[in-house]
Amino acid sequence: MIKVVIIGSGNLASHLIHEFQKSNRIHLVQVYNRNIDKIQYLKNQVAITSKIADLKDADIYILAISDNAISEFSKKLVLKNKLVVHTSGGLHLNNLKSDSDKGVFYPLQTFSKNKKVEFSSIPICIEANEQKDIILLEKLAKSISTKCYSINSKQRKSLHVSAVFVNNFVNHLYHIGNEICKEQNIPFELLLPLIEETATKIQSLPPIDAQTGPAKRNDTKTIEEHLALLNANQQNIYKLLTNSITTTYGKKL
Amino acid sequence: MIKVVIIGSGNLASHLIHEFQKSNRIHLVQVYNRNIDKIQYLKNQVAITSKIADLKDADIYILAISDNAISEFSKKLVLKNKLVVHTSGGLHLNNLKSDSDKGVFYPLQTFSKNKKVEFSSIPICIEANEQKDIILLEKLAKSISTKCYSINSKQRKSLHVSAVFVNNFVNHLYHIGNEICKEQNIPFELLLPLIEETATKIQSLPPIDAQTGPAKRNDTKTIEEHLALLNANQQNIYKLLTNSITTTYGKKL
Repeated sequence: MIKVVIIGSGNLASHLIHEFQKSNRIHLVQVYNRNIDKIQYLKNQVAITSKIADLKDADIYILAISDNAISEFSKKLVLKNKLVVHTSGGLHLNNLKSDSDKGVFYPLQTFSKNKKVEFSSIPICIEANEQKDIILLEKLAKSISTKCYSINSKQRKSLHVSAVFVNNFVNHLYHIGNEICKEQNIPFELLLPLIEETATKIQSLPPIDAQTGPAKRNDTKTIEEHLALLNANQQNIYKLLTNSITTTYGKKL
Repeated sequence: MIKVVIIGSGNLASHLIHEFQKSNRIHLVQVYNRNIDKIQYLKNQVAITSKIADLKDADIYILAISDNAISEFSKKLVLKNKLVVHTSGGLHLNNLKSDSDKGVFYPLQTFSKNKKVEFSSIPICIEANEQKDIILLEKLAKSISTKCYSINSKQRKSLHVSAVFVNNFVNHLYHIGNEICKEQNIPFELLLPLIEETATKIQSLPPIDAQTGPAKRNDTKTIEEHLALLNANQQNIYKLLTNSITTTYGKKL
């Protein structure tokens, strides 16, 4: 059994707590949060604390707290011969300042409070300086997911930027699509099957081959008509992405 | 039985042919294409022709051809007391110039040649001037899908622009995510569960509530770090979408 302490109470922390409790290969020893009220709901299931001095003995301490807090918090940890990991896509391993082995345990997924996620298919990106720690993190990852990847800090940063494009920015385009529909009293649900199919298509087809639409065809007449329907901000986004698509496929011809 | 003739041999035409052949409420009378070679594969299943003069008698003639060809082609049709429809998201009903009743039969989905689509969940947007034609189109739509919407030409144009945002532009962002990963030798498959969850999330949550990430948090440090990893085109897109997100949520505070 791998003994684990989780630090934090946010979306990722609560999902990890849930998964670790289900696994029979992991012993969730304790959950820490500086505000004890936020983890009171766990008190009948696992030891909880808001005092660093009261942290129990474990193999791995997982910091599932905000990026800004990681360096400062890790400085306070006096844990010799233990592994301390953060869970951030954007931060280098060396942002950890504790007096112990360092690692990263980064599940690449978007987590919302009340939305269940099928953890077993989430890629978990791990990193550590010591081979024994990599083996331990791999064991931890594989106890909750079928997908574990060794990703160094430089790669993880690029992965994090990619995730911003395919998750944050994509969701914002969904929002713009919704706004355009609203103006004409069109229910957004009409777009849902298209959104789903767009995401499904690239599971079997590289995105470069899945591209369709007026920008790829360089159909300037349709593009002009579309622009006439949009507000200034939507127009800027439409133009920039259309140019980017035209350039992408122009090069390929 | 509704008697149908399909004009065209592209992705949408071939999907419609397939669906109509399965339905026992539709009689697919004939398929027309100006280049007969492209529909030879159908000759043992249905009558085919490349001559407008040989078009058979039917209730509905469905033009599943490119937007540019619709006006010209429809001028050539001499079909009194028949219903001629186009299948375009971007074109007004009045782009049809035939001497018959006019309508639109627009399935809102992205179609690829060798990719099967579950037609029953595709929203079909219909429009016609005459009430009897609306009833006929609704019957046709419901024979292959559970979702049928009355959408006028103005609404359909907005819907088409929305579709460009949530399909064409989203796919291009997938492509950029892929490019960023490639540079660091990260397999694109790592992003697939995130892409899927992003699309699934908004089936139950409005996109405005599903937004996460550095732009929404106005986390300027992370944004700067991301920009440093991108090429000029990627930077422009990153900045514009980040500003758009910041403005969207800034307003809401």
